[in-house]
Amino acid sequence: MTDWFGENLLAAIKTKQSPICVGIDPIVDLIPDEVRKRSSSRLGGGGQSQADLDSIFDFVTAVMGIVAPHVPCVKFQSAYFERFLWDGVEAYFNLIQEARELGLMVIGDVKRGDIGSTSQAYVDAHLAGFVHPLAGEDEWAFPDAVTVNPMLGLDTISPFVDAAKRLGKGVFVLVRTSNPGSAELQDALLADGRTWSEMLADHLAPIADQEGLVGPSGYSSIGAVVGATQPHTMASLRKRLPKSIFLLPGYGTQGATADMTRAAFVNGQGAIVSASRSILYAYKDAKYQSIASDWRKCVERAVLDMKNDLAGMLQAG
Amino acid sequence: MTDWFGENLLAAIKTKQSPICVGIDPIVDLIPDEVRKRSSSRLGGGGQSQADLDSIFDFVTAVMGIVAPHVPCVKFQSAYFERFLWDGVEAYFNLIQEARELGLMVIGDVKRGDIGSTSQAYVDAHLAGFVHPLAGEDEWAFPDAVTVNPMLGLDTISPFVDAAKRLGKGVFVLVRTSNPGSAELQDALLADGRTWSEMLADHLAPIADQEGLVGPSGYSSIGAVVGATQPHTMASLRKRLPKSIFLLPGYGTQGATADMTRAAFVNGQGAIVSASRSILYAYKDAKYQSIASDWRKCVERAVLDMKNDLAGMLQAG
Repeated sequence: MTDWFGENLLAAIKTKQSPICVGIDPIVDLIPDEVRKRSSSRLGGGGQSQADLDSIFDFVTAVMGIVAPHVPCVKFQSAYFERFLWDGVEAYFNLIQEARELGLMVIGDVKRGDIGSTSQAYVDAHLAGFVHPLAGEDEWAFPDAVTVNPMLGLDTISPFVDAAKRLGKGVFVLVRTSNPGSAELQDALLADGRTWSEMLADHLAPIADQEGLVGPSGYSSIGAVVGATQPHTMASLRKRLPKSIFLLPGYGTQGATADMTRAAFVNGQGAIVSASRSILYAYKDAKYQSIASDWRKCVERAVLDMKNDLAGMLQAG
Repeated sequence: MTDWFGENLLAAIKTKQSPICVGIDPIVDLIPDEVRKRSSSRLGGGGQSQADLDSIFDFVTAVMGIVAPHVPCVKFQSAYFERFLWDGVEAYFNLIQEARELGLMVIGDVKRGDIGSTSQAYVDAHLAGFVHPLAGEDEWAFPDAVTVNPMLGLDTISPFVDAAKRLGKGVFVLVRTSNPGSAELQDALLADGRTWSEMLADHLAPIADQEGLVGPSGYSSIGAVVGATQPHTMASLRKRLPKSIFLLPGYGTQGATADMTRAAFVNGQGAIVSASRSILYAYKDAKYQSIASDWRKCVERAVLDMKNDLAGMLQAG
């Protein structure tokens, strides 16, 4: 482990030979039946929501055990934990610790963004390694990196950038998202000919290229989220953010292919592709129908297929 | 209580005769000494962070008791609770329940924003009245409204808008924030002559003006956050969003004056001004030096001064 998140992530990608981040989006209704808990009684005793949270805990733990030999990184989607209120937040942090014990790097997909000292409070909450007394003697396991929403202005991400420098953490700034409706606001054409996202990238570039953030490989701990579904702008954003590792959501269920991520890679590195449902719930995919009764095998097969798919694209160059 | 959040908020403003929202930004170091807890031992037993959280709980409860007769609404800044991890989240929901018992409307300042079913999970987490089993027989008290970050696209706020319709909840969409660095991205000039925020407002207007959201007064349950510090664009945004109640942060500590909020009001209504530190920590303000030893009195005086200040501006027209 070096002092740079970016460096550590690139090394982990190399070790596992796969630029893949498995997105942990635990949706109760999609969890395989054999893992689902049923509440033991209709009323009281925690009820269905405790049973649901237990299902999530067991499912995510099992998934991480399956993917850990094959991928460097997992990304936890905070929303699916927050919906179980404080119990969910506790589960989120416990599962992050599980991930780290499995040797996985962890991105907290929290998309926080606020101003001044509120932004600092979010750093304390999600990145900075606040030592929670309930964690006992161990330092509590926080994510290695988080996603950040920059809409309020790039001044507002300073506390995250400072934490990245000081603690070797990483930050992925939303630059161009993967959803269909993102074009309306993010591709808005400015008077100077750039899109809004391109302008955002231009403001982010010097922030990423600061001393203390860029490791020997030339990549920064300040990365960018760019939807794999957006190939029309990928090359432009890559050029504007040469030091940033791109986190590319949208592969699989959202429709992006390996080919659509090509422009994010430079000499085969500098990007990591995220997939969530196409891996977690592969047992529901017609493609894996013949092994659908073994959801664990489906998860592993989906990861290996994705790995081969990306390797093929990178070898084709 | 009507079925419309917007209607209920306007009625509460009228009853209390003050378009004021007190921002609950509990910063431990600023809490008056007499309220501050010290951990009983240096190690273990919950330690300082539990003592800090207890201080916050007592301080916020006391502040709400003081302001409840004078203002219709409080706004909880989620970050300051999240930094105490799951214990903080539990305190956040407990304090929201306290607020509602005091007859205050509650805005959860969570600034969430994500895509598709993740956005729905955030609705479940922060707005939709998910009944937590630990809440026992009572329906758990969720905020009446939340703030939402629309950067990912206005399609992504649909689950929040649906919840507003279905449950009489409110949504405040960030349109133009109060911080100094916000201009860089939000005032970016588009090729068509609008600023990026103006374009965002134009996309938001038809969403706010839907059946089931607009009450008899003509205002919608889908409001907009517009920094009181941004008078240069206030009139333009007001015109573009005629049905939206404006939530105006930035009064007081951030430097906005009553006069700077004028363009947000139409015939004396349609906006609510938020102030946090200038009220909560008024005992530190030189203006209240003569009563600084009584922090409670300072809180009350600061609210009444703000109320008079806004009333003067509104009467001047």
